[in-house]
Amino acid sequence: MNSEQRAGAVEKQTGRLESFSDGVFAVAITLLVFNLQVPHLPAGAISVPALGSALFAQWPSYLTFITSFATILIMWASHHGIFRMVYRADTPFLFANGLLLLLVTVVPFPTSLVAQYLSTPAAALACAVYAGVFVVINGAYNLLWWAATRQRRLLHPSVTPRQVKRLTRHILLGLPVYLLATLLAFWNPYVSLGLCSCLWIFWALTFYEGSPSRRRLPSGQDMETAPEIDA
Amino acid sequence: MNSEQRAGAVEKQTGRLESFSDGVFAVAITLLVFNLQVPHLPAGAISVPALGSALFAQWPSYLTFITSFATILIMWASHHGIFRMVYRADTPFLFANGLLLLLVTVVPFPTSLVAQYLSTPAAALACAVYAGVFVVINGAYNLLWWAATRQRRLLHPSVTPRQVKRLTRHILLGLPVYLLATLLAFWNPYVSLGLCSCLWIFWALTFYEGSPSRRRLPSGQDMETAPEIDA
Amino acid sequence: MNSEQRAGAVEKQTGRLESFSDGVFAVAITLLVFNLQVPHLPAGAISVPALGSALFAQWPSYLTFITSFATILIMWASHHGIFRMVYRADTPFLFANGLLLLLVTVVPFPTSLVAQYLSTPAAALACAVYAGVFVVINGAYNLLWWAATRQRRLLHPSVTPRQVKRLTRHILLGLPVYLLATLLAFWNPYVSLGLCSCLWIFWALTFYEGSPSRRRLPSGQDMETAPEIDA
Amino acid sequence: MNSEQRAGAVEKQTGRLESFSDGVFAVAITLLVFNLQVPHLPAGAISVPALGSALFAQWPSYLTFITSFATILIMWASHHGIFRMVYRADTPFLFANGLLLLLVTVVPFPTSLVAQYLSTPAAALACAVYAGVFVVINGAYNLLWWAATRQRRLLHPSVTPRQVKRLTRHILLGLPVYLLATLLAFWNPYVSLGLCSCLWIFWALTFYEGSPSRRRLPSGQDMETAPEIDA
Repeated sequence: MNSEQRAGAVEKQTGRLESFSDGVFAVAITLLVFNLQVPHLPAGAISVPALGSALFAQWPSYLTFITSFATILIMWASHHGIFRMVYRADTPFLFANGLLLLLVTVVPFPTSLVAQYLSTPAAALACAVYAGVFVVINGAYNLLWWAATRQRRLLHPSVTPRQVKRLTRHILLGLPVYLLATLLAFWNPYVSLGLCSCLWIFWALTFYEGSPSRRRLPSGQDMETAPEIDA
Repeated sequence: MNSEQRAGAVEKQTGRLESFSDGVFAVAITLLVFNLQVPHLPAGAISVPALGSALFAQWPSYLTFITSFATILIMWASHHGIFRMVYRADTPFLFANGLLLLLVTVVPFPTSLVAQYLSTPAAALACAVYAGVFVVINGAYNLLWWAATRQRRLLHPSVTPRQVKRLTRHILLGLPVYLLATLLAFWNPYVSLGLCSCLWIFWALTFYEGSPSRRRLPSGQDMETAPEIDA
Repeated sequence: MNSEQRAGAVEKQTGRLESFSDGVFAVAITLLVFNLQVPHLPAGAISVPALGSALFAQWPSYLTFITSFATILIMWASHHGIFRMVYRADTPFLFANGLLLLLVTVVPFPTSLVAQYLSTPAAALACAVYAGVFVVINGAYNLLWWAATRQRRLLHPSVTPRQVKRLTRHILLGLPVYLLATLLAFWNPYVSLGLCSCLWIFWALTFYEGSPSRRRLPSGQDMETAPEIDA
Repeated sequence: MNSEQRAGAVEKQTGRLESFSDGVFAVAITLLVFNLQVPHLPAGAISVPALGSALFAQWPSYLTFITSFATILIMWASHHGIFRMVYRADTPFLFANGLLLLLVTVVPFPTSLVAQYLSTPAAALACAVYAGVFVVINGAYNLLWWAATRQRRLLHPSVTPRQVKRLTRHILLGLPVYLLATLLAFWNPYVSLGLCSCLWIFWALTFYEGSPSRRRLPSGQDMETAPEIDA
């Protein structure tokens, strides 16, 4: 086995773990649609205006659906960002990944909670749980990244310390923001929810900042995760 | 790395994005089955004719299920048509793809809305929402294709301007038709729904028009998306 | 591109279509679990015997769950049996495959129908619908196989006429049996359901009849679908 | 076809079976989230404390969700552990794998059963069914492994008898523990549930015991399943 073939084999070490994780992400993100429920009107009161206002009254469902969808999508992108640099797995890494997947599948639950209670007196708790779940998810990401980087055992040899530092900062960033959103929920649930929405927009925008397509890197490089790998 | 290996690497750049998208499409299309609900009959009134007429009364569910299924299937084919020509991704492209996936997962919601309200006085609004969602989806496709083709940065070098123009026409076509279907819903919901159904049949038929199998291209060419790539 | 590389490219032509189909099969087969509902007991009447008898009373759900699961599994195996021989797709083939996927995702609906109505006076119709869906699915398989084999345009060059004939027989077999099961449902629903169950057991047993592992074929051959490919 | 190409072909023989199984595992594990239901409070009684206590009262749901999630995750890892050593499939192996998949998709059902009945007088039966399902799943694993190893026909030539023996022990271990948990359920449901939880923690810890990363094996080796393959 020459060095090139070995490199190929190395790539594949986490391949199954990754494709299984992808499957879980894809199913979890699609199940969010169950938060959108068709309104039930009493048989005698069905009319275009009645259905229209019933659909409009569901705006918390639409808002949380979009926020959760976008957040899972960003989480998926971050997951790949981590796996791009990792070329093998050990027990703590697998545990951390399992915890992360568990939390990703949980997201439809707080999403539905907020959708149902945002316009009630219990909105504060619903939004606190929502933001709180993202605190825990962010913790799981930090755990996964810590498991990947401690002693650099699992990282691909080509990953530079600067890249590691960059992703560490990137992942840590969410923790204080989501913690703040959790606390703010008890003051104003809408501000809390707004903060959760802003964070994914911010992440999405920064995730590809300094994208190689702007810096004209050689064409053989992977654009998808290249921002993470400051070659 | 020689040019052939680089070509292989280029192919893989959007591989994960694509397989994740495929997963979302596959789950979303399968979740449509939840629009088919087993009718509940009162315990004393269960008989073959009663169940038969209850099943028959659900025809709007069957109709919208088939239309939505076929439309998502065509959307999946179009998605691949676009990704065949794209060999790398940047931020706007990823955003547009995320928006598209969000809208694809939403499809079961308006489908269920039409199924429940087609035989009620609120049918007009239900059908307008249904066609309206497809207007937005078509917009997302145009956005995705625009993100892929602006300055030709993301397109595979082998893609010709004629191919780009052809797919642009192909995708733009749906916009006026779905807009018309949205407006027509307020005049006649059935005509609106019929238009949505016709459009996917039309697309399915034209998607492979001029298929290479008819034009006897060399056997090494990909038949699946070849009509889009007028080699 | 030399002939070997071209062969590799040929393999991949239906790759995406197949993996998308696999995704739909996997989701549809897993969604069957929603036919197993936890029984709801009145708060005052909850006890081990009460829950036990409530669980036992759900036996039609278990029976149809197992039958439908096994049938989709066999259908998945047959789908691969067909795709093993096909190396490219054209419009009619894609249409037939789309129809097949639509019908596969429908299976949870008649399954749930039988589960709810097997012990009621409407059992005859429920079982007739159940078997009837499989008649239509079998028709879709025959259509898919016909689309693959007409003029042999889509078949891999190495496929022999004997293999084609064998699979044709194999797929056609189900049609009369499922038609019989549909008719028998009006005479005795249990016999109809039993026939549907027997058929998948029979298919499972014959699918690998004459398996190469028994006939000691060279080790390079694919065992999974080899029975279909009488080399 | 030289020996290297043949080796490549051998790898792929169970590829589709495996990716289909992965899909089923991924969907089944994600569907567990439906055990987490948003509590419904009467419109007049909605407040933060009321929602808080309603959420807290659902702790059996959270507990069983986590236990089932972790168990399916471990099952997925074991499934791959088996498929790493298998390079082709025959009829009994396919039957055993189908049975296993059926049982994996069933897991959400007993999970929901325990969640709903853990704090009721019927807890004993619910927990017995829960542990009992895992007895049957463990039986299916033993069956699958037996089908893979009898006469060593399906095993990859490089698998050593020591590795086979090790995995045999590993899989057999669960049987007495789950049987015990089933019986204990009638004495104390919580102990039964605790035992099921402990088992997956124990398995997770032992699964990677003696991981190559600790034994400094050459870097070309697969870390994911290496513990099973005592090279």
